[in-house]
Amino acid sequence: MRKFGEIEGISRGQIFANRAELAKVGIHPPTQAGISGSSKEGADSIVLSGGYEDDRDYGDRILYTGAGGRDENTGRQIADQQLTRTNLALAKSKLDQLPVRVTRSHKHKSEFSPKEGYCYAGLYMVEDYWREKGISGHYIWHYSLVSCERLESKEQTGIRDNSPDYKETERKAVVVNRIIRDSTKAKRVKEWHRYQCQVCGLALETSAGLYAEAAHIQPLGMPHNGPDDESNILCLCPNHHILFDNGGFTINEDLSLNGIDGDLVTTKKHKINLNFVAYHQAHNQKID
Amino acid sequence: MRKFGEIEGISRGQIFANRAELAKVGIHPPTQAGISGSSKEGADSIVLSGGYEDDRDYGDRILYTGAGGRDENTGRQIADQQLTRTNLALAKSKLDQLPVRVTRSHKHKSEFSPKEGYCYAGLYMVEDYWREKGISGHYIWHYSLVSCERLESKEQTGIRDNSPDYKETERKAVVVNRIIRDSTKAKRVKEWHRYQCQVCGLALETSAGLYAEAAHIQPLGMPHNGPDDESNILCLCPNHHILFDNGGFTINEDLSLNGIDGDLVTTKKHKINLNFVAYHQAHNQKID
Repeated sequence: MRKFGEIEGISRGQIFANRAELAKVGIHPPTQAGISGSSKEGADSIVLSGGYEDDRDYGDRILYTGAGGRDENTGRQIADQQLTRTNLALAKSKLDQLPVRVTRSHKHKSEFSPKEGYCYAGLYMVEDYWREKGISGHYIWHYSLVSCERLESKEQTGIRDNSPDYKETERKAVVVNRIIRDSTKAKRVKEWHRYQCQVCGLALETSAGLYAEAAHIQPLGMPHNGPDDESNILCLCPNHHILFDNGGFTINEDLSLNGIDGDLVTTKKHKINLNFVAYHQAHNQKID
Repeated sequence: MRKFGEIEGISRGQIFANRAELAKVGIHPPTQAGISGSSKEGADSIVLSGGYEDDRDYGDRILYTGAGGRDENTGRQIADQQLTRTNLALAKSKLDQLPVRVTRSHKHKSEFSPKEGYCYAGLYMVEDYWREKGISGHYIWHYSLVSCERLESKEQTGIRDNSPDYKETERKAVVVNRIIRDSTKAKRVKEWHRYQCQVCGLALETSAGLYAEAAHIQPLGMPHNGPDDESNILCLCPNHHILFDNGGFTINEDLSLNGIDGDLVTTKKHKINLNFVAYHQAHNQKID
């Protein structure tokens, strides 16, 4: 199974002599490709090797170019890139907010690159991706990556409506939010339901694959203290997630719905704890 | 028009002799009610006066009890509270992420209360609200309020999947995120469309009123630099917002949709700039 996140025993700033060593410790399994990943699972790691003219490296923020479209002899961009294979994998990492390990080669031109070998730079999140015409005039796929270290940093943000960098602020919040929410358990529940909403059956089709949200039945944190457990998680589309969290509907003991028609869709693997359902209903039911 | 947010010339910690003074400067317009607001517009201000036994004050976090259900002579809770009027107003403030001014009376029992008069404590966000049985045994509506000062603070958070207080982290992100997004311009666009999605016509009905999201067509911030202007904002349901941001569909020049059937719903008041639509399409269209 593809390993996302930090590799035990490896720390940021660690230097590796070559790609074989990087692969051996599990930082970046493939020995040639710049992107490690599959379109189904997402991308777990990238290596910056100086091969793409449209790459930009600002340290804690990187504009990374997708793979493909280059002449294999000259390395020049001679064709459009496609949103398939490992490029699609990076898009999937954005959608599911999966952290991507980043390593810089000495061949990658930036002030953050090591003098020799390969330097592991830690985890980054794919904030956004889009298509644009690159320097060559051919279409490339561009990925905006931001360091998780930066997200963790003290650089906390105020509440500013129209300041020029407010999107920045917003992005951080969105990213941190989703990383946290998208725990392994949440992902498992979504997979059990094939990303189909347990209320309406809809699975949103994005260009990076199916999308659903994990909704906690008894809320986490004070004063509710619901557990982060599969039995307390529903797989919902964003619309039904908002409605569930804001009194739009509740779930009865027999898993029929209250406030909208129908029943909650269930699967054998996914056991829902009715105590959490009762808690949600007691705290959300409209009285009048 | 109801005034949300800070009142010019008034700062946190400022003391007022009585309710009449508070009303005069505009911090808390009503001279008797604890909650200032309407169910349509949301609540703009509350005063903590020590009247409700289920209130809890932790300074930057307050558990606030809705209005009603008390005996007017003894002040004892003798009936269930309803999610109507000013209680509904506070729920609406949660849904639209409107900041609420908080003032503590000397009669409110807490270490944060002034010795005499009324102390303005700044802006708080309604993070959540729910129904529960209060100390009296009657149902009350409880509101969890968190200080915007706390949200603005340096207390930035890391990326922790299962730590006990991670919901806390998530909440802050959600709150900051929504405050920022829900600018005046975004709200105006939603109102023009009566909170109906410009793709599917759906307006989500929550217990606190209608819900929709403001989606920027040409994204804000680097490297896209789209403007925060009504002509660059769409009113979408959460599902179509996710799809729009993740290549699920684009909009053609004639405002027909690409990727799903139909046309974008428009109104006379809301002029959409086609340059932004073209930018979105160029950066999102699937090639294959």
